[in-house]
Amino acid sequence: MNTLGNRLKVTVFGQSHAPSIGCVVEGLPAGFAPDMERLNAFMARRAPGRNGWSTPRQERDKPEILSGLVEGRTCGAPVAMVIRNSDQHSRDYSGLRRTPRPSHADYTATVKYGESYDIRGGGQFSGRLTAPLCFAGGLALQLLERQNVTIAAHIDRIADISDTAPDFARVSQPDLAALLQKPFPVFSDEAGIKMRQAIEAARMDCDSVGGVIRCFAVGLPAGVGEPMFAGVENRLAGALFGIPAVRGVSFGTGFAAAGMRGSQHNDPLVMEGGRVATRTNHAGGAVGGITNGMPLVVNVAVKPTASIAKEQDTVDLETGEPAKLVIHGRHDPCIVPRAVPVVEAVTALTLLDMLPRG
Amino acid sequence: MNTLGNRLKVTVFGQSHAPSIGCVVEGLPAGFAPDMERLNAFMARRAPGRNGWSTPRQERDKPEILSGLVEGRTCGAPVAMVIRNSDQHSRDYSGLRRTPRPSHADYTATVKYGESYDIRGGGQFSGRLTAPLCFAGGLALQLLERQNVTIAAHIDRIADISDTAPDFARVSQPDLAALLQKPFPVFSDEAGIKMRQAIEAARMDCDSVGGVIRCFAVGLPAGVGEPMFAGVENRLAGALFGIPAVRGVSFGTGFAAAGMRGSQHNDPLVMEGGRVATRTNHAGGAVGGITNGMPLVVNVAVKPTASIAKEQDTVDLETGEPAKLVIHGRHDPCIVPRAVPVVEAVTALTLLDMLPRG
Amino acid sequence: MNTLGNRLKVTVFGQSHAPSIGCVVEGLPAGFAPDMERLNAFMARRAPGRNGWSTPRQERDKPEILSGLVEGRTCGAPVAMVIRNSDQHSRDYSGLRRTPRPSHADYTATVKYGESYDIRGGGQFSGRLTAPLCFAGGLALQLLERQNVTIAAHIDRIADISDTAPDFARVSQPDLAALLQKPFPVFSDEAGIKMRQAIEAARMDCDSVGGVIRCFAVGLPAGVGEPMFAGVENRLAGALFGIPAVRGVSFGTGFAAAGMRGSQHNDPLVMEGGRVATRTNHAGGAVGGITNGMPLVVNVAVKPTASIAKEQDTVDLETGEPAKLVIHGRHDPCIVPRAVPVVEAVTALTLLDMLPRG
Amino acid sequence: MNTLGNRLKVTVFGQSHAPSIGCVVEGLPAGFAPDMERLNAFMARRAPGRNGWSTPRQERDKPEILSGLVEGRTCGAPVAMVIRNSDQHSRDYSGLRRTPRPSHADYTATVKYGESYDIRGGGQFSGRLTAPLCFAGGLALQLLERQNVTIAAHIDRIADISDTAPDFARVSQPDLAALLQKPFPVFSDEAGIKMRQAIEAARMDCDSVGGVIRCFAVGLPAGVGEPMFAGVENRLAGALFGIPAVRGVSFGTGFAAAGMRGSQHNDPLVMEGGRVATRTNHAGGAVGGITNGMPLVVNVAVKPTASIAKEQDTVDLETGEPAKLVIHGRHDPCIVPRAVPVVEAVTALTLLDMLPRG
Repeated sequence: MNTLGNRLKVTVFGQSHAPSIGCVVEGLPAGFAPDMERLNAFMARRAPGRNGWSTPRQERDKPEILSGLVEGRTCGAPVAMVIRNSDQHSRDYSGLRRTPRPSHADYTATVKYGESYDIRGGGQFSGRLTAPLCFAGGLALQLLERQNVTIAAHIDRIADISDTAPDFARVSQPDLAALLQKPFPVFSDEAGIKMRQAIEAARMDCDSVGGVIRCFAVGLPAGVGEPMFAGVENRLAGALFGIPAVRGVSFGTGFAAAGMRGSQHNDPLVMEGGRVATRTNHAGGAVGGITNGMPLVVNVAVKPTASIAKEQDTVDLETGEPAKLVIHGRHDPCIVPRAVPVVEAVTALTLLDMLPRG
Repeated sequence: MNTLGNRLKVTVFGQSHAPSIGCVVEGLPAGFAPDMERLNAFMARRAPGRNGWSTPRQERDKPEILSGLVEGRTCGAPVAMVIRNSDQHSRDYSGLRRTPRPSHADYTATVKYGESYDIRGGGQFSGRLTAPLCFAGGLALQLLERQNVTIAAHIDRIADISDTAPDFARVSQPDLAALLQKPFPVFSDEAGIKMRQAIEAARMDCDSVGGVIRCFAVGLPAGVGEPMFAGVENRLAGALFGIPAVRGVSFGTGFAAAGMRGSQHNDPLVMEGGRVATRTNHAGGAVGGITNGMPLVVNVAVKPTASIAKEQDTVDLETGEPAKLVIHGRHDPCIVPRAVPVVEAVTALTLLDMLPRG
Repeated sequence: MNTLGNRLKVTVFGQSHAPSIGCVVEGLPAGFAPDMERLNAFMARRAPGRNGWSTPRQERDKPEILSGLVEGRTCGAPVAMVIRNSDQHSRDYSGLRRTPRPSHADYTATVKYGESYDIRGGGQFSGRLTAPLCFAGGLALQLLERQNVTIAAHIDRIADISDTAPDFARVSQPDLAALLQKPFPVFSDEAGIKMRQAIEAARMDCDSVGGVIRCFAVGLPAGVGEPMFAGVENRLAGALFGIPAVRGVSFGTGFAAAGMRGSQHNDPLVMEGGRVATRTNHAGGAVGGITNGMPLVVNVAVKPTASIAKEQDTVDLETGEPAKLVIHGRHDPCIVPRAVPVVEAVTALTLLDMLPRG
Repeated sequence: MNTLGNRLKVTVFGQSHAPSIGCVVEGLPAGFAPDMERLNAFMARRAPGRNGWSTPRQERDKPEILSGLVEGRTCGAPVAMVIRNSDQHSRDYSGLRRTPRPSHADYTATVKYGESYDIRGGGQFSGRLTAPLCFAGGLALQLLERQNVTIAAHIDRIADISDTAPDFARVSQPDLAALLQKPFPVFSDEAGIKMRQAIEAARMDCDSVGGVIRCFAVGLPAGVGEPMFAGVENRLAGALFGIPAVRGVSFGTGFAAAGMRGSQHNDPLVMEGGRVATRTNHAGGAVGGITNGMPLVVNVAVKPTASIAKEQDTVDLETGEPAKLVIHGRHDPCIVPRAVPVVEAVTALTLLDMLPRG
C-alpha cells in the first residue's frame, strides 16, 4: 500500500492537511551517518516556491528525525521522520466533495473511502507526500554513492520541446554530476529556456503542461535483478507509478522500440576497457530483468497538472447535474521540474533495495 | 521472483528445454469449473505455428492438471499444471555461452547464474514460459467474466503502421468481443493487412519488427486499487514487464500526455446512464491508482524480436575478441501478435487479484 | 521486519531513548471513529508504574496522532502515531556495551549492528516498543467488537502458581468481559493473590519470575485462515513471538497434547444452538489452520525478566575476561501482567487482518 | 498460503488423491549439484511403511524433477518437483463429508471451500503434503552443510515417556550426526524402547499418542534474524505450525521458563574457545529474535493422530443429528517419528532463507 521495497522498506504516511507527513525507513545499514546538509539540499530541489516555474507556497519541509539515528548515525532501528504541516489553509473544501476536480483522485477516493476521505489539499494523494520519499531517497542516494552508483535525471521533454538526448551507451558519471548542478536539469540549456517559456505560456493561459523525465543510473554492476516479475524493470515501474501524475514508464528506447527493426534495436556486445559492454544501449541497461552493466535508462511520462485555473466541467454529485468548477489556490503550471528529484529518489530506493549488500 | 499476485498467486516454472514448464495457481475460489475448451482456445492464441506470421514450430501446449481440480472443479487447493516439453532440439548450445546473442538474456543470465545457466532455447527467459501465464490468465478471464469484466487487447502498432484507436471513453464490451474473434486483433482490418506486410517484409530481410499492444478492461467497478505503490497502474506495470520483450507500459494517453495541456488532458466528469463517467478517458480508467469505472486502457511497448537471422556483432567471452554471430533456428519476425493473449492474461490475473471477491 | 500484517499492517518504530516511539497503521477501514477514551484505557493497562507489581517509572504514553484521522474519524490514509519519550535517564550506557547483560539483546544486537547499536534502555528491543502495538491493537479490538469478536487474556501461570483454567469449549463473552474488568486478570482471585505474592517474593530476592498468558477470542466465525503456512496458528505464532520475552506459543491443550491419546484429545463434533460445535476444545479453535467457530485459545510462555538486580556473570567484550554485572534501574520483577494487553493487541491485529472485511 | 520463505521460497501443491503432489523451489543458488541419493534417503525417513510404528501403506515417493536442474545441477530457474500419487484407494469418501472426523480439517475445510473440497484422504491437509517439504528441506540441509550448519531432531517425548535432554549449551555436531544415524532418533535408547512400546500399546487400543520433537541447529553464526516480527523465533514458529498436527512451538527451555526465576533462566555470558558463548542455553540460541551463536533449540508439540480406529462421536451435517463414526484405513498410531525429518526440513528451509548468502 504505502510501502515501497523489501529489505529496504519505506512506509509513507500523511495527508496534505494532516498534522504531519512522514515516513519510516527500515533496513538501512547500521553505522551510516547521513550528510544532513546534502540531504536537505536534495529535498529542497523538490520543495515548492523556489523559483518562477513553481508555486509560491512556502513549505518548510524540515525533516524531524524521531528514531533510528543516534548522534547522527543509524543504529539499526527504523528511521522515522516527520515533517509538520504548517502552511495549511483552513478554507472550505466541502465544495470539492460535491463537484470533484477532473483528473484528480477526488472522485475515485470518495468511491473508495466514502465521505470520510480527507479531500483537503488532495489528502493522501497530494504531491506533498513525495517529500518523505525524497527524504528516504536522499538517504539511498548517499548509500548508492558508496557503491559507486550515481543517479540523476534530466527533463527530456516539456510540452513539445525536447532536450538533447545523450548517447545512452556513453552517459557517464561526470555527465550526471553536471546535471545535478543545474537548477533546471537539461542537457541543452537552449531547450531548457524554451521549456520554461512553455511553462510560462501555460501559466498565462491558466493552464498546465506535462513532460517526460529520463533518469539514469550509472555504475550499477551487471547481474542485478530477478527474472520474470522481480526484474529491474518490474520493480522500477511498480515504484515509479507511485509518484502522482506519472502515466507511463519505459526503458531505454522505450515505446520507440515498437517502430524499429531488430537489427537496429539489438545492442551489439563489445569489449570496452576490459569488460563486456554494448555498442548502443536501446535496452536501457537491463535485459531479461537483469542489469547488464550499461547505464540504466528509465523514462517517466508526467501528465499536465490536473489543477488548472481555467473553468472546467464536472458534475454535482449531490444533484447529478452538470456543474462548472474553478479551482482556486496556487498550483504548479508544470510539475515536471519538481518531480525530477522524486524520480531520482524512487529510482535510488528501488535500486538500493535490489543491490547485493556492499 | 517467478510469482505474480497476492491473494491470487501464480508461480511459474520451467525452462525452454527442461522436461516441463508449468505453474501453480493459488487462491482460486473453490467450486469453479473452468471451461477447458475455452481455456485451450485461449492458450492456442499464444501458441506458435498457427499461421504465416509466427514460427512453424509445433508445440503441443497441452496443459496437464496435477492438482487442485476434482471432477473438473476447483477444490480450494492450488491448481498445478504442467506442459511437457516435447519439441526439443538437442543441438549444441555451447556456442551461445561463448558468444552471447545481442539483446538476449544470455549475457546477463551468465553473469547472474554463471556457467550453470540453462542457455538452451533461452532457458527460463524463453517466451515459452508465457504459456503457463496464459493458462492461469485464461482461468482469471473466465472468473472476471462472472463479475462482468471483459478484457481484450488490440495491436495498436507494428513497425510504423498504427491501428485506428477507439474512443477510450466509449470502448464497449461488444467492441472487445469483436476483437476477441479476430485472428489478428485490430480495429482497422486495413491496418492489419499492412501490419502483416510489414512483418513479412521484416522476415524477408532476415529481420524483425516491434509493436505496441493496447489492452482494455471494460466493466471494472470504480474504487479498485490502493494508493501510492499498490495502485492499479503500479500493479499492472509491475506485472506486464514480466512478459519478455516489453519495454514500456503506459495508461490511457500515456507518453502523449507529456505534450498536452491540462485543459486537454483532464477528463471532465459527466453523468451517463445514471452514473458518474468522464467525457474523455485520457487517464485510461484510473486516477490516483484507483479505478474510476471507465474502461481501463494500458499500452505495452514490445521490442522487435532479438533473435534475427542477420549476422550480428558480439564478443567471444573466452578470448575477449569481437565475434560474428548468426542465430539459427525458427523465430517469429514479430512477437507482437502472439503476445496479445499474454498481455490479456497478465492483465486479467492482476485485476482479478485486486478486485474484491465477488 | 518491524511490520505486522498484510491488509491491516502495522509498522513500529522507535527505541527506548529515541526522541519518540510510534507506529503507522495501514489498512484500517475509512470512516471508523475510534473511542479514544477506551483506547487510552487499554493502553494504560500496559503502562508501567500503575501498581505494586510493576516498575514505578512514570511514562506518559500519550499517543499523538499525526495523520489518518480527520475529526476523529479514519479517512483511508495510514494512521501514524507517536509517543514522545520524556522520561529518559541520561546516564552512561557504555558499560553495557562492554559487559552485555545475560539474556538481553545487548550481545546479539551488537553482533548484528555493531557499535552503532542503540543500547540505551534496550534500544529497539525495549518492551517500551509494545506501547505502539497496544495503540494499533486497541484500534483492532474496537473493530473486532463490531464483528462481535471479543478478545481477552488471563494470567494462566506465574512461577509455580496456576490460575483455574476455564472449559475451553465453554468460555464465553461474559467470561471475557469479566476478565477485562480485573486489574490483575485471573479467573481465580485466590490464585491471583498468590501470584502477586510470588512476584513480590522475587522482587525481595532481587530476582524475577516468568509466567504464561492465555488469550481467548470468542465470536470468530468458522472458516478463517488459510492452509499450510498461512493458518491461524502460523500467523498468530509468527506475530506473538514479536513480543519481547515470549519463549513459546501453543494452541488449546498445547504441549500437554503430547501426553494424550487421540481418543482423549479429539474434539467430538456436536450440534449446539443449531450450529456445529465441539464438545471439548483441545484444538483451541482451529483445525488445519482454519477456525472452527469455537473459542480460539492461545497460550504464550513469558520468560522471567532478564534485568535483575542480582549480580550476574558476563564477559568483558574488550578484554575477553569474565566480568560481574549489576543492573541498575527500575525493572518489573514480572513482566507478565503488563504483557497481557500486548498479547491481546497482537492477537487482535492478527485476527482482524485475517477476517473477511465485515 | 502454500508458500514458505522469502528469498528461498517453496510453494507446495497437491492433495492426497490428486494426480500428483509436488513443489516449486525458488531461490536456490545456481550451480548446486544436490546429492540425490542422500536426498532420497532423507525423504525415506518420512515415508510410511518402513517399520512397525508406521502405516504399512507403500508410497513410492519418488521425486520427479520437472525443471531447474541441468545435468544434475541447479541452473538458477525454479526447481519444480512432482511425486505421482499411485496408491490411491477409490473408495467412497462421501460419508466423511456428511459426518466429519473429529479434530480433522474435514469440517473447517468444508466451511471454507464448500462441497468442492477434496475430502479424499484428507485432501490438501493430508500429511502426505509433507513429502514435498522434505524434498525442499533436504536440498536446504545440503546447502546448510556447506555453511557448516547441522540440523537434527530427537523425539523428546511420546505419551508420558521422555528422552534424556542434552545440555542445550553443549549439544554438538557429532551428537547430531549420531542422532541422524538412528532409525528412531532419541538420545536414550532405553527411552526409545519405551516410546515404541507406548506407540504399540496405543495401536492395540485402536488409539493414538502424541509427542514432542526437539530440533537443534548447530553451527549457526551469531547475528541471524531481524527484530520484532522477523526474528528467528517468529519465522520458525510461523513455518513449523505449517506441519499438520503441530500444536505448540517453543524455544530452549520454552514453557518451563514460566516457572523459573530470572537468576536461573538467564544465560551468563562466557568466553569459550576464543568466542562469546553462554554457560547455559535456556534461550535456545536466540535473543531478541537474533541468533547468539549457541545451538538453536526448538521444541514442537505434536498432537496424537486424529484418525483412530475407535468409534467416535460426531454429527451428521445433513440431518443435524448426533452420529457415530468409525474411521477405516491404515493410520499411524503416532505420527511423531515420521514428523522428525519434516521438522528438520522446515527448520532448514527457514534458517537457510534467513542466513546471509555464503
